[in-house]
Order: sequence, then C-alpha cells, then structure tokens
Amino acid sequence: MNFQGIAASSGIAIAKAYILVEPNLSFNKKTIEDNKKEIERFRSALSIAKRELKDIREFVEKEFGASEAAIFDAHILVLNDPELITTVEEKISLENVNVEYAFKETTDMFIAMFEGMDGEYMQQRAGDIRDVTKRVMTHLLGAKVVNPSMISEEVIIIAEDLTPSDTAQLNRKYVKGFATNIGGRTSHSAIMARSLEIPAVVGTREITQHIQDGDMVVVDGLNGIVQVNPTFEQITIYEKKHQKYMEQKAEWAKLVNEKTVTADHHHVELAANIGNPEDLAEVISNGGEGIGLYRTEFLYMSKDRLPTEDEQFEAYKSVLQGMGNKPVVVRTLDIGGDKELPYLKLSKELNPFLGFRAIRLCLEEKHIFRTQLRALLRASSFGNLKIMFPMVATLDEFRQATAILKEEKHKLLEKGAVVAEGIEIGIMVELPSTAILADQFAKEVDFFSIGTNDLIQYTMAADRMNERVSYLYQPYNPAILRLVKIVIDASHREGKWTGMCGEMAGDEIAIPLLLGLGLDEFSMSASAILKARTQISQLKQSDMVELANEVLQLRTNEEVARVVRARCHL
Amino acid sequence: MNFQGIAASSGIAIAKAYILVEPNLSFNKKTIEDNKKEIERFRSALSIAKRELKDIREFVEKEFGASEAAIFDAHILVLNDPELITTVEEKISLENVNVEYAFKETTDMFIAMFEGMDGEYMQQRAGDIRDVTKRVMTHLLGAKVVNPSMISEEVIIIAEDLTPSDTAQLNRKYVKGFATNIGGRTSHSAIMARSLEIPAVVGTREITQHIQDGDMVVVDGLNGIVQVNPTFEQITIYEKKHQKYMEQKAEWAKLVNEKTVTADHHHVELAANIGNPEDLAEVISNGGEGIGLYRTEFLYMSKDRLPTEDEQFEAYKSVLQGMGNKPVVVRTLDIGGDKELPYLKLSKELNPFLGFRAIRLCLEEKHIFRTQLRALLRASSFGNLKIMFPMVATLDEFRQATAILKEEKHKLLEKGAVVAEGIEIGIMVELPSTAILADQFAKEVDFFSIGTNDLIQYTMAADRMNERVSYLYQPYNPAILRLVKIVIDASHREGKWTGMCGEMAGDEIAIPLLLGLGLDEFSMSASAILKARTQISQLKQSDMVELANEVLQLRTNEEVARVVRARCHL
Repeated sequence: MNFQGIAASSGIAIAKAYILVEPNLSFNKKTIEDNKKEIERFRSALSIAKRELKDIREFVEKEFGASEAAIFDAHILVLNDPELITTVEEKISLENVNVEYAFKETTDMFIAMFEGMDGEYMQQRAGDIRDVTKRVMTHLLGAKVVNPSMISEEVIIIAEDLTPSDTAQLNRKYVKGFATNIGGRTSHSAIMARSLEIPAVVGTREITQHIQDGDMVVVDGLNGIVQVNPTFEQITIYEKKHQKYMEQKAEWAKLVNEKTVTADHHHVELAANIGNPEDLAEVISNGGEGIGLYRTEFLYMSKDRLPTEDEQFEAYKSVLQGMGNKPVVVRTLDIGGDKELPYLKLSKELNPFLGFRAIRLCLEEKHIFRTQLRALLRASSFGNLKIMFPMVATLDEFRQATAILKEEKHKLLEKGAVVAEGIEIGIMVELPSTAILADQFAKEVDFFSIGTNDLIQYTMAADRMNERVSYLYQPYNPAILRLVKIVIDASHREGKWTGMCGEMAGDEIAIPLLLGLGLDEFSMSASAILKARTQISQLKQSDMVELANEVLQLRTNEEVARVVRARCHL
Repeated sequence: MNFQGIAASSGIAIAKAYILVEPNLSFNKKTIEDNKKEIERFRSALSIAKRELKDIREFVEKEFGASEAAIFDAHILVLNDPELITTVEEKISLENVNVEYAFKETTDMFIAMFEGMDGEYMQQRAGDIRDVTKRVMTHLLGAKVVNPSMISEEVIIIAEDLTPSDTAQLNRKYVKGFATNIGGRTSHSAIMARSLEIPAVVGTREITQHIQDGDMVVVDGLNGIVQVNPTFEQITIYEKKHQKYMEQKAEWAKLVNEKTVTADHHHVELAANIGNPEDLAEVISNGGEGIGLYRTEFLYMSKDRLPTEDEQFEAYKSVLQGMGNKPVVVRTLDIGGDKELPYLKLSKELNPFLGFRAIRLCLEEKHIFRTQLRALLRASSFGNLKIMFPMVATLDEFRQATAILKEEKHKLLEKGAVVAEGIEIGIMVELPSTAILADQFAKEVDFFSIGTNDLIQYTMAADRMNERVSYLYQPYNPAILRLVKIVIDASHREGKWTGMCGEMAGDEIAIPLLLGLGLDEFSMSASAILKARTQISQLKQSDMVELANEVLQLRTNEEVARVVRARCHL
C-alpha cells in the first residue's frame, strides 16, 4: 500500500512506524456499587503513572539534561498532591460515581481554579495538571500510552500533524523520517524536517488511518510517497534510490568551500535560514555564505514567558560570532498567524494569517519590540548584523519601526554601550502592497528580502496550510514572478540589494528564473545550499535573463514550469 | 458620553437604544432538597416560554406572514414534547439536581442525537431545540429576554455585531439605526445599513458596555459618532445636521434621470450592487444605469437547502426584466469566507478568507455551479445579462468555468431552450495575482470588475473584519491605485471594459482618482449613486488624469487622501 503526499524534505528513510496520535479519552459517567474497588483502580492508575513518569524523567535527564527533565518532576508532584487525591476518593465514596468521572471533574476544577489566577506559575500548574490528567486517564481507560520522549529505536513518526511542541519532545537521534496527514511544503513539520535533514512527506490526508504501530514504512521524500509494509523487492529499489541520492549529495559537497558563481562568472550569495544558534553547525558544514533569515520567534516559543534582553543578547551574539564576518540577517519577532505565544494571551482571530501579527503586533506591544531591538543592537558589534522587519505593509510602519530602533540605539550609546555603525535595516517583502510599491520603499530601506511563502499565499489569496486550496500555491505563476522582478529592479535602481528567504529560493525550477531576474541573495534550508550551488555553477546568467523575460509573458504556472524544465533539462 | 466608530452608513438617527446581546446563561450544578419545588420551577418556565412564543408567533404572522411565523410553531412543539419533559423531571427526581442542570443535560443529549442523524429535517430539529433551550434557560436564570422580532417602536439597535440571521429577524419598519462594537465599512452590518438607507456606526469597540436599554441615542453616520443620552442642545444640533443632510439629498436627487457625465463630457456608468430582486425598486428610484453586481448568494443563504434551478431562474428573470435593456452583471455563487451555508457542511478552515470559497468551491461542487449557470442562461433572453465569476486567481480557473458554461449552454440549446447570444463573460478582479496578470486575462475575458473590498484585504494582508488591523484597509494606498491602473489599462488595450463593485467605487475621495484612471463603470450601494453623479458632473476628466498620475507616485494612503481633498475641495 502506498500514499501520495507532498515531498517536504529530500531523502529516503526506511524504519518502523511510530504512531503519534491523541488517545481517545471519552467515557461515560456511571453509578458504581463497589466504592472500594473503584478507589483501588484509582490508586493503581496513579502508581503506574508515577512509575512511568519516573522512568521518563530518568531517560530524559540522561539524554537531554536536567533542565529538560524538570517538567516531569512537576508532574510527579501533582500525582502526590494529597488534596487532589482526597477530593477524588471522597467523590467516589459519596456520589457512587466511577473513578474516570470523579477524577476528571476534580482535575477540571483544579485546572479552572489555577487558570483563573494571575501569574505564570499558576498557568504552568494548570498545564501540569492537564498533562497528568491525560496520562492517568489513559491508564484508567486502557488507551494506548504515547511517550514520544521515550523513543529509543529508529522510527518514522506518523502523525496528523507535528506542532512545535511535538517536535520539541522528539528524540532526534532516533527519528528517521516523518509522514503526516496535513501540511504543505511550508508548514512547520516540513521546515523542521528539512532543518533536521530527515526525509518527510506531508499532506497525505489519511495516512494515520492506515498504518499500525510497528509497520515497516518507507518515506520517499524525493517523490512524496509513503510505502507501507514494502515487499523485499521494493525495499531493494528504495535502498538503491537512497544510495544514488547519497552519491549525489557527495557530488554536491565538493563545492562546500567555493563561492557561488554562474558559468559566466556572475556571483550570487547562497545563505541559510535558521531558527536557533544550534543550527549554525549545519550552515557551516553546508558552506552557507551567510544567514539570510534568522527566525527569532523560536526564542519566544521555547519558553512560557518572554525571553529576557540578556537571553536574546546571548543568542544573537553567538550566531554573529559563529558566522564571523559573514552577513547575518535577523528578522524581528514574527509572531501571530500560525505561530502562537500562549503566554501573550492574544485574542483569537477569524483569519489569523490576515491578522494582528509580526510588525503589527510589535508596533503596538512596544516593550516587547524594544527589548528585542536593544538585544540586537548590543550584539551588533560581534559580527555583521543586518536587521529586518517582517510583514511590513506600508511605509508608515517601516518609519515607525526605524524610529523606535533609533531611539533605542541613542539610549544605549548614551549609556556607553558599544553598537556597530551602519547596521543595514531592511524589510521582508511578503505582502503584495509592499512589492508593488517597492520603488518607494527602496528609497528608504537598505535591502529587501522576499518572503515567498507569504507573498504567494497573499497574492493568490490561498492559505498555504489549507489542503483544499493547495493547488493555488504557485511559485512560478507569472504574477508572482512579475512581483519578484518589480522588487529586484526597484532595489537595483536605488543601489540596494534584494534577497529571498522563502522556500522558492531553494527550488530547482525557480533558481534559473531568479538568477535571470537578478536576485542577489538566495536564502534556504542549509541542506539545500550545495545542490543549489552546483545547479547555479552550470547555468549562464545571460541565458537566464532571456529565459526570465520570456516566461514573464506566459499565462500559467504550468506553462512556466514546462518551459524551464525543457530549457534547463530538469 | 459619545463614542467614535466607523461611519458605515450616512445620515443621522435619534431613538431609544435596543440592546441586542446574548444573555449570560451560565449556572452551577446543585444538589437540591425539594424535588417538587424544582419541577414546579421547570413547569413554570415552560409555560412562560410557551406564552411568549405564541405572542411572537402571532405578531410575526401579522407583520411578515405565515411562512415566517412557522418557525415558532416548531418551537412550541418542542416545549410540548412529552419525552423531553419526562426526561428532565425524572432527572430532577432521581438525581436531586437543579432544573437548570437537568434541563441542559437533557437538551444537550437531544441535540447531539438529532445532529448525529442525516437529513435536513433532523438538523433543523436540533436547531429548534437549541433555540428553545436558550429561551427556557433565560427564564430559569432570570436573564434578560431579547426578542428582536417583537420590536414595535422606533429603536436604534446596539449590538456586538449583526449577523445575517440577526438582521433577518429585525422588524425593519422600526429600526432607525445601528451601532456595533465590531465591523468595518465592508462588514455585513454596514452593507445592510446602507442598503436599508439607515444611519450606522460600526467598530465602536465597546458601546454595548456603556448603553442601557432605553437610553436615548444619536447615531451620526456621517461622522461615525454615537452620542448617548444627548443634552437638549446636542439634539438640536443633530436635528439641524439631519435637516441639512436631507436637503443635500434632495439636491442630489435632481440628477435622477440624467446620464453620468463629467464637466468635460466624459461619460461613465453608475450602477448598483444588489442582493435580491426586491432591491431593484431602490436602484430605479436612485437612477441606477445598471446592476454592476448582483450578489446571488442571498438566494442560497435565505433557505436551509440549495435553491432549485427554477427558483433561481425566477429571481434572475425578474431582475433582468426589471432593468429592461440596462446591463445586469450577475456574480455566480460566492460562498465560503465569511459567508456560510450551514447545509453544505463545509469543513471549518483556519483562515476562511484564504480558503475554499467562491469559484474554487464551484469548480469542485460542479452540480451547484451547473444548476446556477443553467438558470442564468435560461433567464438571459429576458434582459441584458452579463455573467461574472468571483475569486478567479488563475487563467486555468477561468477556462474551466467558461468550459462548463459552454457545455450547459450547448445542452440547453439542444433541448430547444432560448438563450441570448453573445452574453459577456467577465471576472471579479479581487486577488492581487489577477490584477498583476490582467494583460493576459484581458485576452480571454469580456470584462473586469474590480472587487476592492477583497483586493485591498489581500494586497495588504489584513482581514477587513478584524479591528486590530483595520488601519490597513487603505483604499488610497498607491499600491492599490497602481493595481487598479494596471487592470483598467490592460482591459482598454484589448478593447474590453473595467468596472468596480467594491465600496471604493462610491467613495468621494476615490471617485476623482478612478475617473482619472479611466474606470468605465462604478457600481455602488444604490443610495450612493446620486451623490456620486453630482460629484462627477462637477469634475473634469482631464484634470483627474493628471491628479491620478501624480498620486501614483506618492508613498502613503494619507498623502494621497490629503492631495485629493485639497485638489477637489473635499
């Protein structure tokens, strides 16, 4: 049996399936006869859960360290809480109800109580109780226990979708690939897979319904296919394919220390997108010529509170130092949309992708923005920093953001801090309005970086996470290419430069066109750099200019793809 | 006390406030001592609710007719259902719980049961039980009962927001104005207010919290102000303002039978946006030169099933006949986004505005689309029909839609039906992709109609219903004006025409610019036509061409507005 999905991260992986699904914890309220037996059931479930948590705690401490393991101490504390235990047992005795009902009612009450109180600590406790309740209920109901942090053999994760908190729990050493029901090339799970350099297929729609735990699974991230319980013959074919892919990778690796130059000696810069200082090693091993996009939101998402100025300073400094004098483009906080920060308690929006996010939020919640800018300015003298604002729709927004940056710089200098001179300030071009008005923006910004994931989404008015309209994610649509051209031309006329940090920058069909349109910097997953460098080294820029001009006059995404494939032998 | 909001519909209204808010129906589960008393409370609440429903039923039948009143018969039936009553009373007796808990548990169970069954009738029953539950709970909890269908004196509706189902319940004879917390110029409540020609202020954020039922309220739809409990002096001022506005309207009315011509003899067409055949009277009384947008989705939203081909045929025919030989542009079904059809059971989307809607849905649910096209083709010989597809993002979509139209036409002709020759087929230009590629589209379509509400929303990536980003709804942003220019120029080069059917077409600052950019047809609320005709008659097109070229080089929405205001004395 095989499933077609979207090829989200290259390579082939073969391993056993590990199904990561929420257990079904529904139950009915029942009147019981034997109170004692019911209380016995409760105590037994508690003790199993406790033992389990101790095991996980120990394992996680060994694998990841003490701070990662601390969360499980908090969970064990909940299970030892006498007030909670007494309340449940009294409820069973007095109301003659089943333990599932008594336990759920009690923990719901505790959760509501803690949630109603102010402060991070109380919110954290509510979260702990929620997690523990799930674990105990799983045992009471005999549901399957899922402990992703305990994975200790090679597996392929099969899931509806993977959220940032899921991936944080995964033991990366053993996860060989992903396959998910939902998502597209630009969803979190896909980006994560590419960053970990493991094969992934997303958007299979229904794979969780057809795979059992322990089934043998092949994830073909080159063709977007998931093969379940392959025959011996199929495994042989996939192993050959894997072999060939690894050889190709070795070929690409020869250019790791080279500059990126076309066959007719035109130089462009191949940079990497990163989310954390830890990603630097991969950038360097793949020959990245800079960081084209440092997504700072992971700093904000990995904690249950805002990162402090010093925490940020340390992160930025380590990236800047790690890259030496190579450019590092840091994007200021891009939260909202599909990226939530629960502790900010933003109101729910009907269309979060068209909502209060990124620079819009930063210009209103100025204390958050100012803290980040101060951390960046303080780190600036440790390398080659460029600052970039996300989701800028109007020149007003850019002017407001730069005014705040100037104020913070001024204040820091007055205090005697060291701040680099001449930090370039740019914007993401990811809204149609900004692309169309690029000539005016180019007079005020130092550089552009085109964010194609969002730019395509807004230009085609199609949510890139929504399967039903995924046919409209069309990077080669002439409308998109024309916008890219408008932006690049506008920047060059003012002596500025344009980069691209969306998925399109690493796409083999887009690369020839982007070269032809004059893109200066291509920023992509580190794992895509060497392949792109190889491809560019075989192209003549002058030919690509001609090709680009030709396809700008075509009418559809498919026509463009067809012409590029034919002309560039792809 | 006064509140600033968004001026959504012109005019001044003074009347008593009618607060339309959802009652707070939360309660706690309680153990009760006296079962009999609790059952007594239940029966009493039931009988009050029944009496109330009978009164409403009678009132609605007298005011609106028997079919509108039928829903209340269904509600009364629920209250007489012996199974429901017995279940609740037994629950009270056996479990010693309060009636609120017993009743809610019971009706929740019934609702879940009906919702689990197939068929419209079952879904409808679930809805009835939900409505009735709300009413009975309101009485049990002593909450305020809101019966908007019973309004029988002049009022101003104060609400969080008004949904289509709210406005359907309102007695339009007595509603003199609206004021809402949320919404913008293009939200449903605003459009509805303009279509009813009653003053409205939306987006006040918090007005429901500061007004009591019966407070005297002034809605100043000219300036977007709501004045609560005005002084005698203030009332006098507002009455004068109202007087002046009425005089101005009388002045505009002088051009009702005239063509729309600039001071230098350039003719444009002023058409109206309508939602129903009943809107025609207003179009004709306001001197509309055509229908620029017939929103057919109201046909689909007013029933709990799809309209039949014949029902649609009758509606289209009556509009075409009503307009004589004047053009009628019918937009095919634009459902999805903020417009739901519960009976289609579409899956929930994270970003419905970027989702499966309009032509995207019609190309997949082809039977719905084909039925509408057949009805349109059959009606075509009764007037001057033009067909327009909404939300077209790519030429592929347009080609698919026209291919289906041709098939249906062919089949009808084979059956001997009469179909007009040479029906123009156009598209809404409401996505940036379509505007940017207008030169290619212009080779294949007969006309464009720019839908600015959506075009602005997507170009700026800002949900027009979301207060927090409403500052980005910028119709004069040079990026928007450039897109409009691209579209108009592209159509003219191919000998085609361009209309506009978004809110912008009736806006006094936009009109001079649109004239200058060469727009052929302006379609707006019927109530805005005469004012626009007056304004256009005083402008020279040649001056406006100059003005438009000048503002295309400006950088912000505000700069453009300032220049136009100064130059056109607005």
